[in-house]
Amino acid sequence: MMMSLDDKGSVQIQTKVLPQDSWTQVSCPCCVSKQVESLVLIQLSDNVQPVTKRWLISLIEASKRHGGAALLAHPGEDECGDVIVVSAPRCTLLRATEDLGLCKKYRNKEMASFSYHDRDNFTNVDDMQEFLTLAERQYIVKNELDSLQAQKKQRIPGVPEAPGVLEAWENICQKLVRAGVIKDIFPLHDQQRLNDVCRRWYSKKQIWRQPLDAIQSYFGGTMAFYFSFLQFYTWALVPPAFLGLVLTFLLPGGGGVVKEQAVEGVMEEEDYGPSVSGHMVQAVFSMLWSTLFIEFWKRRSSSLSHRWGTRHLTERFAEPRPGFQGTLGLNPVTGRLEPLFPEWQRQLRVGLVSLPLVGLFLGLVVLGMTGFYHGEALVQGFHQDSGSLFSGALLYLPSMAHTVYTNILKNVYHAVAMQLTKWENHREESSFQNHHITKVLLFTFFNNFAVLFHIAFYKQDLPLLRKKLASLLILNQLVNQCTEVVVPFIVDRFLSAAHKKEQEDNLEMDKLRAQRSLPPFPGLFAEYIELLLQFGYLSLFSCVYPLTAVLLLLNNITEIRGDAYKFCKLFRKPFSAPVSNMGVWQTAFEVLGFVSVMSNCWLLLLSPRVQEFCLEGGISGKNIILFAILVEHVLILVKMILAFMIPDEPDWVRIKREQIEFNSMQALGQQKL
Amino acid sequence: MMMSLDDKGSVQIQTKVLPQDSWTQVSCPCCVSKQVESLVLIQLSDNVQPVTKRWLISLIEASKRHGGAALLAHPGEDECGDVIVVSAPRCTLLRATEDLGLCKKYRNKEMASFSYHDRDNFTNVDDMQEFLTLAERQYIVKNELDSLQAQKKQRIPGVPEAPGVLEAWENICQKLVRAGVIKDIFPLHDQQRLNDVCRRWYSKKQIWRQPLDAIQSYFGGTMAFYFSFLQFYTWALVPPAFLGLVLTFLLPGGGGVVKEQAVEGVMEEEDYGPSVSGHMVQAVFSMLWSTLFIEFWKRRSSSLSHRWGTRHLTERFAEPRPGFQGTLGLNPVTGRLEPLFPEWQRQLRVGLVSLPLVGLFLGLVVLGMTGFYHGEALVQGFHQDSGSLFSGALLYLPSMAHTVYTNILKNVYHAVAMQLTKWENHREESSFQNHHITKVLLFTFFNNFAVLFHIAFYKQDLPLLRKKLASLLILNQLVNQCTEVVVPFIVDRFLSAAHKKEQEDNLEMDKLRAQRSLPPFPGLFAEYIELLLQFGYLSLFSCVYPLTAVLLLLNNITEIRGDAYKFCKLFRKPFSAPVSNMGVWQTAFEVLGFVSVMSNCWLLLLSPRVQEFCLEGGISGKNIILFAILVEHVLILVKMILAFMIPDEPDWVRIKREQIEFNSMQALGQQKL
Repeated sequence: MMMSLDDKGSVQIQTKVLPQDSWTQVSCPCCVSKQVESLVLIQLSDNVQPVTKRWLISLIEASKRHGGAALLAHPGEDECGDVIVVSAPRCTLLRATEDLGLCKKYRNKEMASFSYHDRDNFTNVDDMQEFLTLAERQYIVKNELDSLQAQKKQRIPGVPEAPGVLEAWENICQKLVRAGVIKDIFPLHDQQRLNDVCRRWYSKKQIWRQPLDAIQSYFGGTMAFYFSFLQFYTWALVPPAFLGLVLTFLLPGGGGVVKEQAVEGVMEEEDYGPSVSGHMVQAVFSMLWSTLFIEFWKRRSSSLSHRWGTRHLTERFAEPRPGFQGTLGLNPVTGRLEPLFPEWQRQLRVGLVSLPLVGLFLGLVVLGMTGFYHGEALVQGFHQDSGSLFSGALLYLPSMAHTVYTNILKNVYHAVAMQLTKWENHREESSFQNHHITKVLLFTFFNNFAVLFHIAFYKQDLPLLRKKLASLLILNQLVNQCTEVVVPFIVDRFLSAAHKKEQEDNLEMDKLRAQRSLPPFPGLFAEYIELLLQFGYLSLFSCVYPLTAVLLLLNNITEIRGDAYKFCKLFRKPFSAPVSNMGVWQTAFEVLGFVSVMSNCWLLLLSPRVQEFCLEGGISGKNIILFAILVEHVLILVKMILAFMIPDEPDWVRIKREQIEFNSMQALGQQKL
Repeated sequence: MMMSLDDKGSVQIQTKVLPQDSWTQVSCPCCVSKQVESLVLIQLSDNVQPVTKRWLISLIEASKRHGGAALLAHPGEDECGDVIVVSAPRCTLLRATEDLGLCKKYRNKEMASFSYHDRDNFTNVDDMQEFLTLAERQYIVKNELDSLQAQKKQRIPGVPEAPGVLEAWENICQKLVRAGVIKDIFPLHDQQRLNDVCRRWYSKKQIWRQPLDAIQSYFGGTMAFYFSFLQFYTWALVPPAFLGLVLTFLLPGGGGVVKEQAVEGVMEEEDYGPSVSGHMVQAVFSMLWSTLFIEFWKRRSSSLSHRWGTRHLTERFAEPRPGFQGTLGLNPVTGRLEPLFPEWQRQLRVGLVSLPLVGLFLGLVVLGMTGFYHGEALVQGFHQDSGSLFSGALLYLPSMAHTVYTNILKNVYHAVAMQLTKWENHREESSFQNHHITKVLLFTFFNNFAVLFHIAFYKQDLPLLRKKLASLLILNQLVNQCTEVVVPFIVDRFLSAAHKKEQEDNLEMDKLRAQRSLPPFPGLFAEYIELLLQFGYLSLFSCVYPLTAVLLLLNNITEIRGDAYKFCKLFRKPFSAPVSNMGVWQTAFEVLGFVSVMSNCWLLLLSPRVQEFCLEGGISGKNIILFAILVEHVLILVKMILAFMIPDEPDWVRIKREQIEFNSMQALGQQKL
């Protein structure tokens, strides 16, 4: 009820924003409404001709049959302005809901795939603000705009000859962006709702919980999944943090009671780190913990996805993403006319071009690191020989050269990764995102961990690894806290105060303009990669430095609010497609879990205490390696069995899914095709 | 056309078998037919009362609404006989086809999930002999008989008080078997069709191909998948056999040209086996080969499954298997009244009881082997000390004791595995089968390979391993050829000749009786495990003995015909549920592929040539182990990437599957629920 009151409130605010009678009219009687909600802003270039703007508006409002988007458009202040505000009528929203495969609440209170034909049996179907979330409505508008195609070869009015010719079936929005007519398309913030979400997000009462449903409703699925995962992960850090504290402080030297007495003699050498049994406990615990963490997150993820109605998305049956290239033909599955591109050709491109190229860049990272170590050794030798001021200055050269090299490599790689992914020509947006993220992710991960891996596996220097890990963690923390909490706080205090005052005084149209001045949403890649790197430090190397989990736990608690604040106040609202999980990030965490078993076994083998223990027990170095391999293989087997045995979805979600599948099967059986 | 002529022919043969007017009558006008085909034989006990037989027949013919099976029954010669012959009317067959989720050819020549409602649009729907295969019709009859349940508590007429009381919802067939009324239920051979299948199977023209469609039609999916796999596997053996021949005969010592010169000095010692590079080539080839083999089999399997209409089986929505126990309740998915048993409880039983128990038995196998080696050492020491005749006889004791121990253990384990799987209470027959097979498989595999693993990993004695492997392979071959080709040949010559003559002369009813005298079908477990053990020898140890593949190839070529002959002539026809793949066997082959990478890397490490090569190159033993681990992990990674990149179904099958899914989604959307 609370929610619904808020919605009504926000609608009244909206009506103040734009004069209602300037909206384009709808022909369909069910779509006529007194108040039209501004959803998306199209930012045109300053020198756009009124004739071009009129043409674009007419295209937006035209029905699908006439090659339009069947949306509502508002020209802003007047016909010469450089914005078009877009909204969507009820019928367009409902049809798009069916096309997306979203599940909504049915008459019987269960979730069911929405069907336009059967719309009257779904709850709240008459109130679009209740039926679809704001993020869904805005995504649908974007989707409809993106799917605008030229019906035949034509000229864009008011645009000079050369860039202004549309080929038949060319994507209109992409063309207009290339021709410089459209500068940007972005969804509009709804201040009333945003304030409501913020209030509930920061409230003192709910310090341990976030209003995930409200986040999903306002910001969309990707954001909600990120914050759900962040929360889940933070909670999951409590047991390893506890274990880390116990191993570090309660058991001096980290060993059990019996072991402690046995190795009493070497207790003074603090650098040795935890004892054999402490090490063992940490390694086995870390292996079990990472498995359980991922498996239980999968369950959580599937129940969230059911709750938000995104379990049965039909992206692969929908129209391809705008950047998709192919020869025009009939889709063999849906029978629609669309560009086609054979799957095996994409597979070949991924396997024979992308994979080797990514490998090449990873090799270049290694090459850079080797060069750096080589150069450093060279320069240090030179400095020791000559000892001059010049040679002293030279000492900084390898490190500087390496930094420059890494940065150039990173930029080149980012460009290459984007081009490669585009060239792979993915049909679905999610597939495109997953392939792009995987590429960047691999590189970033490799770049960050190369030094640690080098120390751990090549130099085999545990004390150095421990120091490096601690300094990286603490440095990262400080930088993060600064950029994510302190800076936003200052911005809020000094900039936003003035901003807020301004907003209350100015005209409604300027509110829209104000949103344009915000920087665009930076995406969640940086946030996820931060979590993944954290998880890497924790699971790969934590047996060297058991306090890792404690530091991460502290970091994450502030991270949640910092991120929340950042996304609410400092950026434009992002478009957010409905998603059913975290996509490739989940796989990345899962893979890291397996790598962690290998790395922990290896670190255990290197640990001076274990080596000492072997020397005392008279076990040969060869046998202890063989034993470590055996342990590694057994642990991986146990991990796989555990992962297999814990179902990926809770029973109640499985039953709901099977119900939908059963109904769908029954329906097929009963229908004459 | 050929097929359809045969069918007509066989129908006429059938009509001779039983007097048509003794069949029970059907009420449904569409099911009336002049000729009824005998499908299944119910063998009653000799002393069954006519009143019991009449009751059972009435139950078989009663409609579903009245708690019957809606089938056709024939009392055999007279009311007192000890057989009931069962057939099925058209409506029952069609409804069951829909319930099973079988796909059949639609009007538009594509496969589509059969729908009773839409039956007239499917081809051949008026001719049951064309529409459903013999195996499907027989399976449906069995399924209907199995699903007979007592509507209320009642007495079985003619059966004494104690065993003769049926509780409400009790399974009638299971009860009758327990009460000793039913001795057996089995499907009937159709001599005409069988001869046709045999003729095409053995024909000289098609020595490299089998009539898989005819096998699927006559014997059902499980058998057809077995023979398809056997054929695919035999073809796949050609490359490794070729490589084995090259490594053994063309390159003396097995090395490349360059290597050959380098190690010329040690070329005489034949026991050393292939050279380093030969070893390497064999190991990497074996890894690649096993991956490609399994991935391409998956593609083949999915296209066979599409061809045979079993891609969309709905076993999980059908009624549970007869042995399934649970509290009666409404199935939350289908809404039907049936026994319910929570999934998590089954998972717990599997994880906390079955898994440890299986582990215990595997431990007992190891214990037995250790005891055997220990005992042998003990006895040999004793014999060397005393040297008497008595101690000489004692030398045989450990081996005999071990054989007895292994046999007892095997029998106990088989009983335990069956009971455990029953107790796990699987809802679906396929799930039951998979869990049972997995258990027996693990044990059999362990039992067979324990000695080889012991030699390879514990004794680390490669020459012994090579000898043992060769002797096992050659011994297995001889035994197999004997039991599977020579014995059947003798049986055919001397027994079947008389048999055939008898069949032509005797009465029709006696033909049915003759089938009763055949031994029941032994199942495919023994056949599959033989292939799996073969595959194990080949992939795990072949780098030690490169001729393995050649021997296996020779064996398999005779195996195909031997098995075919055996199943056609020597056993009763089996019931065969429609299946969409090989089930757990496919997983077993896949897992073995991964284990083979580990074992090959290990054997490579042990190989005397590699050790020598290291000594010459001055590489320490520790480093070479670390290098081997690295190689192992990289190979496993490559294997996983390959497996991921090769799609599990060919493009055309994927498109057909997506078409069906899309249609099903559309149908759900268009139907009012």
